[in-house]
Amino acid sequence: MKGHVFHGPGHSAWEDVPDPGIKEATDAIVRVGTVTVCGTDLHILDGDVPEVRPGTVLGHEAVGEIVDIGGDVRTVRPGDRVLVSCITACGRCRYCRERVYGQCRGGGGWVLGHLIDGTQAEYVRVPHADLSVHPLPAALDAAEAVLLADVFPTAYEVGVLNGRVRPGDTVAVVGAGPIGLAVVAAARLFAPERIVAVDLAAARLDAARRLGADAVADAREAPEQLIADLTGGLGADVTVEAVGAPETFELCTRIVRPGGHVANVGVHGGPAPLHLEELWNRNITLTTGLVDTYSTPTLLRMAAAGWLPTAELVTHTFPLQRMEEAYDVFARAADTGALKVVLGGEQHEIVPFEGKPTEGGDGS
Amino acid sequence: MKGHVFHGPGHSAWEDVPDPGIKEATDAIVRVGTVTVCGTDLHILDGDVPEVRPGTVLGHEAVGEIVDIGGDVRTVRPGDRVLVSCITACGRCRYCRERVYGQCRGGGGWVLGHLIDGTQAEYVRVPHADLSVHPLPAALDAAEAVLLADVFPTAYEVGVLNGRVRPGDTVAVVGAGPIGLAVVAAARLFAPERIVAVDLAAARLDAARRLGADAVADAREAPEQLIADLTGGLGADVTVEAVGAPETFELCTRIVRPGGHVANVGVHGGPAPLHLEELWNRNITLTTGLVDTYSTPTLLRMAAAGWLPTAELVTHTFPLQRMEEAYDVFARAADTGALKVVLGGEQHEIVPFEGKPTEGGDGS
Amino acid sequence: MKGHVFHGPGHSAWEDVPDPGIKEATDAIVRVGTVTVCGTDLHILDGDVPEVRPGTVLGHEAVGEIVDIGGDVRTVRPGDRVLVSCITACGRCRYCRERVYGQCRGGGGWVLGHLIDGTQAEYVRVPHADLSVHPLPAALDAAEAVLLADVFPTAYEVGVLNGRVRPGDTVAVVGAGPIGLAVVAAARLFAPERIVAVDLAAARLDAARRLGADAVADAREAPEQLIADLTGGLGADVTVEAVGAPETFELCTRIVRPGGHVANVGVHGGPAPLHLEELWNRNITLTTGLVDTYSTPTLLRMAAAGWLPTAELVTHTFPLQRMEEAYDVFARAADTGALKVVLGGEQHEIVPFEGKPTEGGDGS
Amino acid sequence: MKGHVFHGPGHSAWEDVPDPGIKEATDAIVRVGTVTVCGTDLHILDGDVPEVRPGTVLGHEAVGEIVDIGGDVRTVRPGDRVLVSCITACGRCRYCRERVYGQCRGGGGWVLGHLIDGTQAEYVRVPHADLSVHPLPAALDAAEAVLLADVFPTAYEVGVLNGRVRPGDTVAVVGAGPIGLAVVAAARLFAPERIVAVDLAAARLDAARRLGADAVADAREAPEQLIADLTGGLGADVTVEAVGAPETFELCTRIVRPGGHVANVGVHGGPAPLHLEELWNRNITLTTGLVDTYSTPTLLRMAAAGWLPTAELVTHTFPLQRMEEAYDVFARAADTGALKVVLGGEQHEIVPFEGKPTEGGDGS
Repeated sequence: MKGHVFHGPGHSAWEDVPDPGIKEATDAIVRVGTVTVCGTDLHILDGDVPEVRPGTVLGHEAVGEIVDIGGDVRTVRPGDRVLVSCITACGRCRYCRERVYGQCRGGGGWVLGHLIDGTQAEYVRVPHADLSVHPLPAALDAAEAVLLADVFPTAYEVGVLNGRVRPGDTVAVVGAGPIGLAVVAAARLFAPERIVAVDLAAARLDAARRLGADAVADAREAPEQLIADLTGGLGADVTVEAVGAPETFELCTRIVRPGGHVANVGVHGGPAPLHLEELWNRNITLTTGLVDTYSTPTLLRMAAAGWLPTAELVTHTFPLQRMEEAYDVFARAADTGALKVVLGGEQHEIVPFEGKPTEGGDGS
Repeated sequence: MKGHVFHGPGHSAWEDVPDPGIKEATDAIVRVGTVTVCGTDLHILDGDVPEVRPGTVLGHEAVGEIVDIGGDVRTVRPGDRVLVSCITACGRCRYCRERVYGQCRGGGGWVLGHLIDGTQAEYVRVPHADLSVHPLPAALDAAEAVLLADVFPTAYEVGVLNGRVRPGDTVAVVGAGPIGLAVVAAARLFAPERIVAVDLAAARLDAARRLGADAVADAREAPEQLIADLTGGLGADVTVEAVGAPETFELCTRIVRPGGHVANVGVHGGPAPLHLEELWNRNITLTTGLVDTYSTPTLLRMAAAGWLPTAELVTHTFPLQRMEEAYDVFARAADTGALKVVLGGEQHEIVPFEGKPTEGGDGS
Repeated sequence: MKGHVFHGPGHSAWEDVPDPGIKEATDAIVRVGTVTVCGTDLHILDGDVPEVRPGTVLGHEAVGEIVDIGGDVRTVRPGDRVLVSCITACGRCRYCRERVYGQCRGGGGWVLGHLIDGTQAEYVRVPHADLSVHPLPAALDAAEAVLLADVFPTAYEVGVLNGRVRPGDTVAVVGAGPIGLAVVAAARLFAPERIVAVDLAAARLDAARRLGADAVADAREAPEQLIADLTGGLGADVTVEAVGAPETFELCTRIVRPGGHVANVGVHGGPAPLHLEELWNRNITLTTGLVDTYSTPTLLRMAAAGWLPTAELVTHTFPLQRMEEAYDVFARAADTGALKVVLGGEQHEIVPFEGKPTEGGDGS
Repeated sequence: MKGHVFHGPGHSAWEDVPDPGIKEATDAIVRVGTVTVCGTDLHILDGDVPEVRPGTVLGHEAVGEIVDIGGDVRTVRPGDRVLVSCITACGRCRYCRERVYGQCRGGGGWVLGHLIDGTQAEYVRVPHADLSVHPLPAALDAAEAVLLADVFPTAYEVGVLNGRVRPGDTVAVVGAGPIGLAVVAAARLFAPERIVAVDLAAARLDAARRLGADAVADAREAPEQLIADLTGGLGADVTVEAVGAPETFELCTRIVRPGGHVANVGVHGGPAPLHLEELWNRNITLTTGLVDTYSTPTLLRMAAAGWLPTAELVTHTFPLQRMEEAYDVFARAADTGALKVVLGGEQHEIVPFEGKPTEGGDGS
């Protein structure tokens, strides 16, 4: 089959790789219909995620069809149309028992396209399938559903639920990339009084408005003042960091009201100063988190019912084999205006599944 | 009457000051029986709290007797023995309605011995008396009760409840001064599996053991390793910062387990680095807070029932007029072994209350 | 002035009554602009609320203007346009400190039109004004705002928040009278997957659809089956009883899923069987509650922002002096199709306030 | 091997039965060292649990040693000393993903000694072993640990956590049988101000005192008055029903304070009247529940650390083969003073495990 293989910093290719096969009784093999590219994939290509070994197939998000299952898989069967979650879960360790699947101690967590071969391929082996793939409602289009593999559960769990957005709140979302935009959309589910999006790019702020932001602010033009004006000088009830930089993190802690919540969603490469000299007596709650995807079944129902504007985030679509072009468009987002690029969309030519090769090429 | 007056950085004296009187219908005048000295009082003397004006009577903790009330006070009467809380609360603003009294927008919060004359005097005017003084159970000794004006509600609310200590947890308390020791004692109420205290001073670690710590660690001798050994390498469920320094804050974020809580109690004078490059994906919840004293009625019942080892914290007692000596002993804690110094203890000579002077000397 | 006076079961009249005046320093006098009639008012007229003494002015909901305040009122001033809440709160008792104002031990709770003269009059004295009236956003029409005095906080607090409605839930609301319809509207704020309304009257089910119900069921036609069909046989996540009868209460406990919530909003005159032989092992949480109105400030912001379809509930409007006719239309709701009747709407002739009579006629 | 077989209402015998063997890849076989008898076992013998088929081996609580595991068991190995939980959990269904294992839709829940052969035998097959057995801390005696298979998690989860016991609370426990007594002990973990036990038997009230009750009341002598006296007329913060009768349930709803919690633990055979005419406006939260055993790992740590007085509940011990005598002593508790009877205690003769019979006699 074909897959998108990492060959060390700066190098990757859509090329022939061995077909995956069942290795554990809890595995499933999924024929990939639709995938997307994540900012994390770009980080891997940049060499920022050193535990990814050259030769690994990238990707941790997909929609597809089950073609084979191990003997202990109970909840899905060949022929089922499923979402492949970015997080796999053993279901037995201390963390999985508490639904904190992202911290799985039993061989799960974020492994696809990271520690083992991922989803940017024609087939993918998904470990711990019972807790790691989700049957798809028929009403849900694949190009929309694939955003529920990572983007929307991250926005909902790590941004909105960790931030404890409540009806009537003022919510400030700092960073209007795909994740920040999904936070805007997901925050709407809790009927805040207003959502304010902050970014540097006018096009992203426009997108934020389409997804439900009531106000937007250019990060260079004193967003503090806008928040103060809107809240009688008090500050936002909830601020969400969706960039991953010290400056935006500091901004979030500066514009939150006493007693408010700061939910960090951004991926950080270094420390940020925490201004405890200002914050120690302000009753702030600050959270961090990798997505656990415990909310995915709920989000799938809500997307099927039309509550999540997933389609708004998809700016470009490609057939699966144009993977390298899709990466390029996504990497040059400032020029291309890309938010999320989606590949496949279930239109690509279906290659008959050839069975279970005994030699898996899963990079592990 | 006599009071302990701040005269600018480095200067204070126990000297004659005007008697306080009712200024608002919601005020009460309390004849002070017992007071204590807080680390914050030392910070004021060091000049670190510039909003305290010279001429202000210090102190924000007391036990005493109501001698006069304004016309709109409903819950206490002259003759009642009361605890004066470090926090006063208007009861009407947005924050007070949510029990976040420490953030009161209606003239309350921490004002005693800060923005108005405080409790280190023979009498004190307490604004918003209905929500700011608490009738004392008869069973409770004044020298113990006075620790419920600030120390124990701070430890309980900002340390234990913010940190969400649960039965079976491993709790690390970094800093075994009076507040840290009270955190140890208050954490015991939730039946953690173990409490580990960390400090530099052997005497304080001994005190921590007496107050309920199961293990102690010298901060210079790799407390990380002890925590790792006790928790199978995972980290503590809850860490409480009770020092107020960047190093101890960083230690707290290093020894907490994924999914754990870091409760900051310490007063900080500058920023601390928050290692988001390590923490962004570890599902940490970090809280800060000024005490709100919403828990004081509960703590009073529990202290009266013998659940709080308040007496263990009191190392020195003085008559009220030896205020300056008490400050000296408390300031030189490393030499004197002082944890909390208590003045008065209701044994000092009772000066008859002379009425309501129309010119209040409240420093405001 | 004129007021609507209760004269014992079956008798009431819009007639001359003494003007109210300030009696306590915490009182406010409000010139009533807009009022509504509550189902509870009909119960009083039916003789079901024996603690209401003949001579009492009825009514516990109003929008109006502050015309006088006592010396200790801090948060409103004469000239302010306010909502008069159905619950007054002393702000100092144990319950008020926990925001459970409906259970106030300090002379508050539901007292207006119950233990003292109420709002169905040209003026009303509101005790404990600081916590019992709410400044109105200018954007909010009085006829809509008056529904936030009781109907919407009851629906939101006792129905939706007690029932813990969450995104993705199936919510069954049994009873589509004004309160049940407000529950439908308020539940929408939490993005449930679907809301099912159950009633006997087709017109009310139509109204439920307009307010956001996704499905409706005639109570005589096996609503159990509809719920089962919609939820794969599991049952509703949340069921809300908004009738006040044993049969509807039993229905709510029958159609809730294991692990679900039953929120009772209805006013009951007798016991209902609780089928513990079925429920003991099904992990049900069942709540009851009088409204506390702690959510009113939030709901006012949300109504002003257009999130609450309050106007949909108002079927009839009258000038204030046609009070008796309004009661009649409301009492014959089955014939008249009345949901909420609103009187005044700020169009009635403004009678200049004549000062503070020393003899209050407050029925207490 | 020998097992205790149900032969229809009124009949059971300790007799030869086939050895169990692995049937699913997720099974484990446990050599039983220690078991106990539950009140539910008596109900089965009385014919009250009709789904138990004659021929079934009874029992759902045990401590023993793993002797065989299926190919997909990951967390335990032969030789491990384990607790067999009364609840088994598939770990994959909707309920298991939310830790509500007692409501498992994947073939788990309460099945041992109910739908399949149970633990009152020399060996038992445990389905879904990874989530249904728990490795035992070495420090924990088997006779104490076996009370953590059902009694203590039930008391803790369904009584104490559902009832939301908090520091400073007044907790009333109605019924001082084994479960009620365990509720008393488990409530202590949250530092309530006082626990009041109510029962008819003086011996049980004495036991309640030993386990931590601060006050006790004979159910025939107006426990309402005692609760009122202790709480200033307000009522208990939390009441726990641990009998399973309408009268005791009504008592619980009568002695709870406004805003309090009623946690039903008792197994009921019929409905109880819920006095909504009194309760509708009192802000009561009422919970029911089958134990889920999500707390078992925590309770095991706490028992090993000496926080749970499990040994206090064990009044009689027997070798395993004297099962029928143990049932008799337990069934005649009023005469024998039995609280919990424990069999085995790991002293019984070890019968070598003979392998995996292909014909399981598991009653299913």
